[in-house]
Amino acid sequence: MTIYNFSAGPAVLPKEVLQQAQAELLDWHGSGMSVMEMSHRGKEYMGIHAQAEADLRELMGIPRNYKVLFLQGGAHLQFSMIPLNLLAGRASADYVNTGIWSKKAIDEAKKFCHVNEAASGADRKFTYVPEFKSWKLDKDAAYVHYTPNETIDGVEFGWVPDTGDVPLVADMSSNILSRPYDVSKFGLIYAGAQKNIGPAGVTLVIVRDDLVGHADPRLPTMLNYKTHADADSMYNTPPTYGIYMSGLVFQWLKKNGGVAAMEKTNIAKAKLLYDAIDASGGFYVCPVAKADRSRMNVPFKTADAATDAEFLKQAEARGMLQLKGHKLAGGMRASIYNAMPMAGVQALADFMVEFAQRKG
Amino acid sequence: MTIYNFSAGPAVLPKEVLQQAQAELLDWHGSGMSVMEMSHRGKEYMGIHAQAEADLRELMGIPRNYKVLFLQGGAHLQFSMIPLNLLAGRASADYVNTGIWSKKAIDEAKKFCHVNEAASGADRKFTYVPEFKSWKLDKDAAYVHYTPNETIDGVEFGWVPDTGDVPLVADMSSNILSRPYDVSKFGLIYAGAQKNIGPAGVTLVIVRDDLVGHADPRLPTMLNYKTHADADSMYNTPPTYGIYMSGLVFQWLKKNGGVAAMEKTNIAKAKLLYDAIDASGGFYVCPVAKADRSRMNVPFKTADAATDAEFLKQAEARGMLQLKGHKLAGGMRASIYNAMPMAGVQALADFMVEFAQRKG
Repeated sequence: MTIYNFSAGPAVLPKEVLQQAQAELLDWHGSGMSVMEMSHRGKEYMGIHAQAEADLRELMGIPRNYKVLFLQGGAHLQFSMIPLNLLAGRASADYVNTGIWSKKAIDEAKKFCHVNEAASGADRKFTYVPEFKSWKLDKDAAYVHYTPNETIDGVEFGWVPDTGDVPLVADMSSNILSRPYDVSKFGLIYAGAQKNIGPAGVTLVIVRDDLVGHADPRLPTMLNYKTHADADSMYNTPPTYGIYMSGLVFQWLKKNGGVAAMEKTNIAKAKLLYDAIDASGGFYVCPVAKADRSRMNVPFKTADAATDAEFLKQAEARGMLQLKGHKLAGGMRASIYNAMPMAGVQALADFMVEFAQRKG
Repeated sequence: MTIYNFSAGPAVLPKEVLQQAQAELLDWHGSGMSVMEMSHRGKEYMGIHAQAEADLRELMGIPRNYKVLFLQGGAHLQFSMIPLNLLAGRASADYVNTGIWSKKAIDEAKKFCHVNEAASGADRKFTYVPEFKSWKLDKDAAYVHYTPNETIDGVEFGWVPDTGDVPLVADMSSNILSRPYDVSKFGLIYAGAQKNIGPAGVTLVIVRDDLVGHADPRLPTMLNYKTHADADSMYNTPPTYGIYMSGLVFQWLKKNGGVAAMEKTNIAKAKLLYDAIDASGGFYVCPVAKADRSRMNVPFKTADAATDAEFLKQAEARGMLQLKGHKLAGGMRASIYNAMPMAGVQALADFMVEFAQRKG
């Protein structure tokens, strides 16, 4: 039975990448060492690290005046590091609240500054993206923070806000590399690796040079972007194996047409599932406004929890794993990141139709 | 040619562990998933995580009133987290300075409190452990911090200081699990995984319950031990694959007689190298006082840098890798953690004797 893993993260990785990692696990390129056993200061690992950064820069078209940092601690640690580094003496930052992950960023930022909630989807239970002209931005804000894709709510921005001279900060944990972004429109982009990049334990930060170096010197050294920017992410031992795996994923992306090709496939994959929902005559419901539906995370429910449970059980019996919705949302959620093949999404869509016909 | 990897960290892992990881890489126990692809909230990964903790508790005899946390950020982040969590309103902490890693911990702590340097090996260039009766401890200190093994200086404590009611904090990054420790003598033990535990990117913290929960609530959430203690290290996505690998190492340790058996082998391994140094008639020099020589990291030099370079080149040609000393120390350093087999140390000792005979 072919297994398809719809986990929201840590999530499925490209099979070719896992196969290469397996082949190289005991002996990387004839070095006699596993990548896990290499000194991070040795020429072998330094080469792996530099290649991963170069490939990511190529894939995303990252301008030269941006640093690429491979850090630890996940998006959660960034929720603190962003205000602690970017406030730079200002007292307030703008946050856009489009769901559970936005809310987590907001709650943490409140420890360090005034948070101006510039826009919120609360009035419609976070099922849409508030249109830009309704945003109440503060021209003196240190930055504007938003969440381009809400992993739990299944809401995704189809556009990038223009915040003028105020730096735009984006939590791209769940949609980085899934569609092209013009990096020059952002002050800082961050992403936990475990959805669209590689294994858990690596956090990617892409930050414009001029935003680095303004933190309070009493900040813990490890929380200062300057520490890592000055040392090319080698201030201390980086999560070497996770960075190696991320590098293999970047190479896989390049081989498969890069971000533009991924976007095309991701649009087609998402359409299969949303079409199955919309054609079900109400058997399946996805509460998200059509224009703002996520290409990465597709939340849906039937009319009752017992039918959801039956759906999940039968799906699992067919090899479709980890489809259970987040505990805060219930129902089902299909996460269909870059590494989820079209065949997996097709199998799920087919099963959705069949299940609805039997039960509906 | 058999390869022996003497890296100070990330360091050699047990071959059996790497082989098991390789076999399981694409499909863990018939789950159809790599461990890297598993949701951290799923039953498969939850089981791996719980087993790793249980095995570590057994190996180290960790009492029930201690939490075991699998964190990120390395010892460097602990240098901040320790004062930020343990000061608990006190203004000063005691630090013992036995070398470069002690100094790093001290420099970071000075951001947050007064540091009382209770003892220092500076007078003899950090080649020894100051005897306990010379320590100038402050009975009002929040805690006493020391570094049981100095990875760069090659100095190791053969004893545990008795600090009475003041909690003892130890950076065991480079000698944890290499010798038995009575955990109940410590308030907090921490260790980066990449020497004696597993791959880089996992940081182990063992902390007594009563020391958790006294941090300033404005502390970044991720830097508060309580965040992780309350959530069993699952507040956010943990570095799942690194924890899995650590768990495989714990099982390997159990199969091989546990910490007591490791200590016996480690004593014998270290003796081979120190005997080669001491019997070389001054050709090799290790500056560390005999009683305080590290069992884990053996630094040595010949009379000049050119001979050191020749030694390193010839050793590498014989498959003995990563023997170059730290850039701050020069010369050579053989790191011989648990996973370095006796055969590797014997090969190095044999080569040392042969090289000295040829060149001496």
